[in-house]
Amino acid sequence: MTVPLIPVTDPADPRLTDYTALTDVALRRRREPAEGLFMAEGEKVVRRALAAGYPMRSMLLTEKWAEALGDVITSCGAPVYVVTPELAEQVTGYHVHRGALASLHRLPLPDPADLLARSRRVAVVEAVNDHTNIGAIFRGAAALGMDAVLLSPDSADPLYRRSVKVSMGAVFSLPYARLAQWPHSLTGVREAGFRLLALTPDARAVELADALRREEPAERVALLLGAEGDGLTPRALAAADTWVRIPMAHGVDSLNVAAAAAVAFYAVATSRPPQTGP
Amino acid sequence: MTVPLIPVTDPADPRLTDYTALTDVALRRRREPAEGLFMAEGEKVVRRALAAGYPMRSMLLTEKWAEALGDVITSCGAPVYVVTPELAEQVTGYHVHRGALASLHRLPLPDPADLLARSRRVAVVEAVNDHTNIGAIFRGAAALGMDAVLLSPDSADPLYRRSVKVSMGAVFSLPYARLAQWPHSLTGVREAGFRLLALTPDARAVELADALRREEPAERVALLLGAEGDGLTPRALAAADTWVRIPMAHGVDSLNVAAAAAVAFYAVATSRPPQTGP
Repeated sequence: MTVPLIPVTDPADPRLTDYTALTDVALRRRREPAEGLFMAEGEKVVRRALAAGYPMRSMLLTEKWAEALGDVITSCGAPVYVVTPELAEQVTGYHVHRGALASLHRLPLPDPADLLARSRRVAVVEAVNDHTNIGAIFRGAAALGMDAVLLSPDSADPLYRRSVKVSMGAVFSLPYARLAQWPHSLTGVREAGFRLLALTPDARAVELADALRREEPAERVALLLGAEGDGLTPRALAAADTWVRIPMAHGVDSLNVAAAAAVAFYAVATSRPPQTGP
Repeated sequence: MTVPLIPVTDPADPRLTDYTALTDVALRRRREPAEGLFMAEGEKVVRRALAAGYPMRSMLLTEKWAEALGDVITSCGAPVYVVTPELAEQVTGYHVHRGALASLHRLPLPDPADLLARSRRVAVVEAVNDHTNIGAIFRGAAALGMDAVLLSPDSADPLYRRSVKVSMGAVFSLPYARLAQWPHSLTGVREAGFRLLALTPDARAVELADALRREEPAERVALLLGAEGDGLTPRALAAADTWVRIPMAHGVDSLNVAAAAAVAFYAVATSRPPQTGP
């Protein structure tokens, strides 16, 4: 199958609509979920998105990248718009230094109950609306062996360009779902057999390592994480089984949410006795 | 003691030289260490820098902040230049939204040998030249109970404005020193009784938790951390006693260096048997 490369020279060409004003965060936040699309930037991320099964809508490439991505172009069959770096900047609003942008279709998210049924360790994220933090949480959760992420209704979009980039593509490999009602949906998490551990700097919380030491090895664990700064809301804290904290030294109040999450994921991953001998 | 507030209306006033072109990273990187100064931004950070013993050179404030920092102004006796937000932006090159900037004197760094003599757990950082990562490593190291940080000659400046900000002031509370020769100075770390654990994604490395389980509780641990992307250099790896790795899942290559560091600091902090009962 030969796919024609389509040169475009007019920044107002309606075929480039998917790529307009990428730096306008407020606009893109509304548009992308509403239109069922998301952006992948850079060859590696584009390939990972396709490998994860997201269907391609189109690509916007400079000539150099049209060559490097030749196999992708042939196999996915979507239109490929070839532009100059200057035109790419005019349309998107920034210098696309990785030279390759793809617009992909979103897929329906799994049902939280289905996802819980096939998971043992999940991260539950409340009101993290910073795309960098969402991306970093996904990268850590995937790297450290969590099975899934559940998002509160007001958490940021994992498929937003910045989240995808910071996650290094982990948003494609780690399954996630959105909880419909907050904090009511947490009841469903518990009913699925998960023990809900809420991560908080509150002095009344149990030390994370102690809390995990008390868990049965087979138990399912859901780690509840709140936003940078405010932390978990009182109603999320009230819904948890146990409050856990990472001990702090040197008078420091807290860790960045992504670092705290990574520590907690690691602690969960290593809290079970080793499967094989020493 | 009454300190007169000094209104300044000319952006070229030589008394504001400390504050010029703060957004020119390359320039400030050279200038600040050479001139023995660093910047603190925002009321909280300014107070923490003073509490840590750094002498004030001057402050650049908008009127509103001159009131909020009245006690600081009185006690430190340094000149205080009062400017409009517009003038602050003209001088510094950006919108100083926290309204308070201070220029402080650097202090001589401790001798690495002295610092090692009074530490049990240290982070040793190689070639991390990103100010955000340096700040995040300090925040994690302080929060998670490391005693000190040792920096390779080519690591970024912890007192650079961005590092200070990301560290949330941890660069003031956690002692640090610079190693003079790399990697030769690592010999001195080992001679001070530290076991050098090099953090690497290399498959030949021992799992971090296993390596720590084998340590004697009293042993001193130095965690060697490399730069995002490249990781530790072969000669740093060669100088280590043990290579340790954080197990990765879902095909992820690595964690962000600050997240990896936080995980490792936490693992070191919790690897010793609890001091008190179960």
